[in-house]
Amino acid sequence: MVTHRETIPLETRRGVQAIDITDRVANVIEASGVRDGLACVFTPSSTSAIVTNEFEPGLMEEDIPNALERLLPAAIEYGHERRWHDGNGHSHVRATFLGPSLTLPIVDGRAALGTWQQVVFLELDNKPRHREVVVQIVGDGPADASR
Amino acid sequence: MVTHRETIPLETRRGVQAIDITDRVANVIEASGVRDGLACVFTPSSTSAIVTNEFEPGLMEEDIPNALERLLPAAIEYGHERRWHDGNGHSHVRATFLGPSLTLPIVDGRAALGTWQQVVFLELDNKPRHREVVVQIVGDGPADASR
Amino acid sequence: MVTHRETIPLETRRGVQAIDITDRVANVIEASGVRDGLACVFTPSSTSAIVTNEFEPGLMEEDIPNALERLLPAAIEYGHERRWHDGNGHSHVRATFLGPSLTLPIVDGRAALGTWQQVVFLELDNKPRHREVVVQIVGDGPADASR
Repeated sequence: MVTHRETIPLETRRGVQAIDITDRVANVIEASGVRDGLACVFTPSSTSAIVTNEFEPGLMEEDIPNALERLLPAAIEYGHERRWHDGNGHSHVRATFLGPSLTLPIVDGRAALGTWQQVVFLELDNKPRHREVVVQIVGDGPADASR
Repeated sequence: MVTHRETIPLETRRGVQAIDITDRVANVIEASGVRDGLACVFTPSSTSAIVTNEFEPGLMEEDIPNALERLLPAAIEYGHERRWHDGNGHSHVRATFLGPSLTLPIVDGRAALGTWQQVVFLELDNKPRHREVVVQIVGDGPADASR
Repeated sequence: MVTHRETIPLETRRGVQAIDITDRVANVIEASGVRDGLACVFTPSSTSAIVTNEFEPGLMEEDIPNALERLLPAAIEYGHERRWHDGNGHSHVRATFLGPSLTLPIVDGRAALGTWQQVVFLELDNKPRHREVVVQIVGDGPADASR
């Protein structure tokens, strides 16, 4: 059994900003040598999320931001503001609904993603942030096969 | 350590269609021989989702479709339409919010599901599709115990 | 490779109730001896969820409950009611959207959580419940290192 971990550093701008991290996740899987297993992509943060979908501007720059603004608006009152007064109550609620974690099957050394399915980091905070996305891999590698 | 993977083929009708895949996931876990570990159920697609809840018609055929239509309506304008013109912008946004991946603990050779908790594939696209749900398992099997 | 599992029992009150289980999850990880791997936190239930965010009252007692009530109200009609007549149709739909499962990377023997990111059990049912959250861990432990 193999475990392998890397972090993907990101410099973001204020949200909603979608960043395609598919290739960087693929590189971590390749570096692990794992043929069959699981990859967990995780943002250790309360104002960002990991999602998947087709990375194209209509969806990522319009539809997802518009849906978030319609459902969880920035301009309504949030109780969270009383604690920090930094104007990002909506960012926390959005992150809670979308989630920080995505687990992908690794099949024959690659993430089992669909053709039009990318791994996407979503910045939801109201200011630029430095982020460190964690990719943790567990599975069977070449060393296991040769035992 | 054991890894084991199977795909579950599905022929769907236009969404929202809920398909109970609990038994098929259970069969994959049983075939793996894993006693304690994790099962990842994943749809490699941008217009479908994997969720859990009680599989009964009121919830699956009314409440979940109604909530999706109320929150992420089919009839509003989506930027995604400019790319493909296939009328499923809402399907992509719904899939982004619900997510393609479900990780289940395996406990004593079975998925640790509640009594009223089924594993459900949700077709969200606006046309029938052929789907291949991936079930990837990682854990301890009988071979490990005997080492 | 190590697997390790414990359950976290909870006595809840009617939802929306947020319970911080970060320390209890951390204790399970520590007891496992796993240094690098994955921890899956799972509620075997259709009317509760596992989420992460900053555990502070403004967010947990106001913003998240308010968002759920605004988006998935308790008082509208639910088809699920025809089956059980127990008034918790909204609880099932809310649980479907938020999800029962959270997978965390374990890094150097600890969950890779951010500073302001807690693991939270959300009771969504309309009555007090006894809950058993499952924590299943898979990864490399000291025994692996010494082989």
